[in-house]
Amino acid sequence: MRQRSPLANSRRSAGQFRNTAYMVRKSRPYFDAAHEAGLMGVQGRSTIGRTFALGAGPLDDRPKLVDFVRCSYLGLDNHPLIVTGAIDAIEAHQSLHWSCARTRLNFDLLTELEATLSEMFCSRVVACSTVMLANLGVMPLLASGQLTAGRKPVVVFDRIAHISLAYHKPVIADETQVETIAHNDIDALERFCREYPVVAYVCDGIYSMGGNSPIKELRELQERYGLFLYIDDAHGISIFGRQGEGFARSQFPQVLGDRTIITASLAKGFGASGGMVMLGTADHEALFRRYSIPYAFSVPPNLAAIGAALASCMIHRSTELGERQRRLAQRIEVFDRHIATAEQGNSLPIRMIAIGSETKAIAIARELLDAGFYTSVTFFPTVPQGQAGIRVCITADHEERDIERLCDCILARMPDKAAKPLIAPPPVR
Amino acid sequence: MRQRSPLANSRRSAGQFRNTAYMVRKSRPYFDAAHEAGLMGVQGRSTIGRTFALGAGPLDDRPKLVDFVRCSYLGLDNHPLIVTGAIDAIEAHQSLHWSCARTRLNFDLLTELEATLSEMFCSRVVACSTVMLANLGVMPLLASGQLTAGRKPVVVFDRIAHISLAYHKPVIADETQVETIAHNDIDALERFCREYPVVAYVCDGIYSMGGNSPIKELRELQERYGLFLYIDDAHGISIFGRQGEGFARSQFPQVLGDRTIITASLAKGFGASGGMVMLGTADHEALFRRYSIPYAFSVPPNLAAIGAALASCMIHRSTELGERQRRLAQRIEVFDRHIATAEQGNSLPIRMIAIGSETKAIAIARELLDAGFYTSVTFFPTVPQGQAGIRVCITADHEERDIERLCDCILARMPDKAAKPLIAPPPVR
Repeated sequence: MRQRSPLANSRRSAGQFRNTAYMVRKSRPYFDAAHEAGLMGVQGRSTIGRTFALGAGPLDDRPKLVDFVRCSYLGLDNHPLIVTGAIDAIEAHQSLHWSCARTRLNFDLLTELEATLSEMFCSRVVACSTVMLANLGVMPLLASGQLTAGRKPVVVFDRIAHISLAYHKPVIADETQVETIAHNDIDALERFCREYPVVAYVCDGIYSMGGNSPIKELRELQERYGLFLYIDDAHGISIFGRQGEGFARSQFPQVLGDRTIITASLAKGFGASGGMVMLGTADHEALFRRYSIPYAFSVPPNLAAIGAALASCMIHRSTELGERQRRLAQRIEVFDRHIATAEQGNSLPIRMIAIGSETKAIAIARELLDAGFYTSVTFFPTVPQGQAGIRVCITADHEERDIERLCDCILARMPDKAAKPLIAPPPVR
Repeated sequence: MRQRSPLANSRRSAGQFRNTAYMVRKSRPYFDAAHEAGLMGVQGRSTIGRTFALGAGPLDDRPKLVDFVRCSYLGLDNHPLIVTGAIDAIEAHQSLHWSCARTRLNFDLLTELEATLSEMFCSRVVACSTVMLANLGVMPLLASGQLTAGRKPVVVFDRIAHISLAYHKPVIADETQVETIAHNDIDALERFCREYPVVAYVCDGIYSMGGNSPIKELRELQERYGLFLYIDDAHGISIFGRQGEGFARSQFPQVLGDRTIITASLAKGFGASGGMVMLGTADHEALFRRYSIPYAFSVPPNLAAIGAALASCMIHRSTELGERQRRLAQRIEVFDRHIATAEQGNSLPIRMIAIGSETKAIAIARELLDAGFYTSVTFFPTVPQGQAGIRVCITADHEERDIERLCDCILARMPDKAAKPLIAPPPVR
């Protein structure tokens, strides 16, 4: 007798969320071309400020490039205090990492870090090894209704929410209803709020490819309908707020409450390594510390990351933070005086130079590299097909003249990108 | 006119894979009790060998515990060379972390680390910030058929595959057929191999709650049917193999080939921090370096982790590795001479003391803590309900007498756990 076919139990694939094969087929030529042009998979070593030595071998022999790729918006990633903090923590413990779940055993310094961050950001902060794992930790809890008093929410995603959020749609859809709305479509979101008793919205604070969420309008929906907000503010942390609360947190009241969770980076603007989640209630914290999968089955930030983050906290609580925030704002203005982008004037450090053709974007990024500037060429699937461009990350540590030289190089190739003066000259009488 | 209901586009949840609310409801009392007993969320600081100082405050005032929780099986996590390696890397770069995607810019030392690991493990190794993210990076590629010559596999999971693998089932199910078979059920797996042209099997090498995959039998299915094997060997790395290739890799031929991917830890036995993926072909590597989501949108191991891992590579290539492997084997034998477990005699460092009742397991783990031993109490959802127990991780760094004292403490509470002598005494003539 023939054995029972395994097909009897099979589950057919749904194809609602992902089509990896299509994505690979469409984008592979661009990736290969960008690698061939030396724009991807680059290696190097820190030198001074925002420059780095390209390649390997003796430092003196390597070309030096000005970097506009790294997201160290306040220029903290090679700050001497942060470097020292990382080393001191390792030396104090004579260890770098303990291989066990956070639910079990933790370095005492990690407890200290979380207490400090919680105080700074007026919330219950749990540190994570990466923002991606912070998000993975919350998403199943959100879907289950555990964060919304036991009632499963309809989970609504912004269409361009970061992949570290959107990845989890099929996981969430296994437990509750998932919806996707157009970018920043507050009206569509409000329709869901009217239609369903419990709605959660998942979005970025500052979007990695430019722009931001309308936090004020989102808070209005929260006040009117009880909307739950889940905001990944990886790019917004540190660059706004008196103690660097960040783009999202600084727009919420003193008490975060039971309807908001914000994740953020301990790298990027913060200048150390790792991620964090800001929770508003003791119950949310207890749930996260018991049931976040990475918390229970993966690793915390290592001691170097913890020590660096503690040092960064000290910088965040000193006058240096405000100085760096102001310097960043000024550097962004320098860029905006020269180059027109969709982001012009928005005070965020990400600028997207729209080009369109993937081939042309790769060619121009290569020419910028030859001129001494490393930028991020962006193409599908990071942005839609035919909307390739170059991303420029501006930091407080960039020299003004380096930003101006980059702008000149861009304009020499794309004179149509020249900024119109923001203030019109007075009319001739 | 009333607006069109958002329901028109809604997707109902399927509930095939997850029921987080049920899991929380059933396990919350155990978690709360374990926290209350001081067994979870513990903090401390490294002291000598496998002891640590519990709590915070001045070191001299804190109780010292012998730790059986950490998975540093070779005792490398506070090895002086590894500590120095971490510090040296930070000092050489005057930086801890660059906040950018690996597809863009990488520390030159990371390139060096990957080259070294690739040579040691005869494969193409990509380093990752955690094993969980290494798995997240591969799973969608596996589902899409990109790793199996463009043909989507039926993806078969071992029922107790680690949550860092099983988490992705709904994501995979969105692209292809997902199946789950009983633990180590080679016959069921073979039935799938007979029924379907392309099958991928996802499992752990060494299971975190005891036991292992039958690699030899899996390789036979691979040779007979072309079965694709995806093995998470987080717990198996370093403790087997001449250069620490690990439990899984050391049972494959010199060339890994196009039908096997192994992930492993750079922490645990390896002694540093982070994870890695071992790939067998240039095409698999190119796919991973372009389309692994964490590779493109999250972070690499930080410089401390890279420096520590490079130092660990040196230890792996010295005679010290074999000495530590042998010492580990000897320490496991010491434990097995005293306590009977399902794992007795299996040469792996994880031992599960079966207890059954969650309340009793928590009480006994607390008594062991009072006696100076920190162990992992395990209960649902990590193991099935009513099958709670205590996990003991044995390392090369444990003092023999500490293992014996732990065993005595266990036997004082559970005399039925006494090991029967493995070799029967000679019959009396």
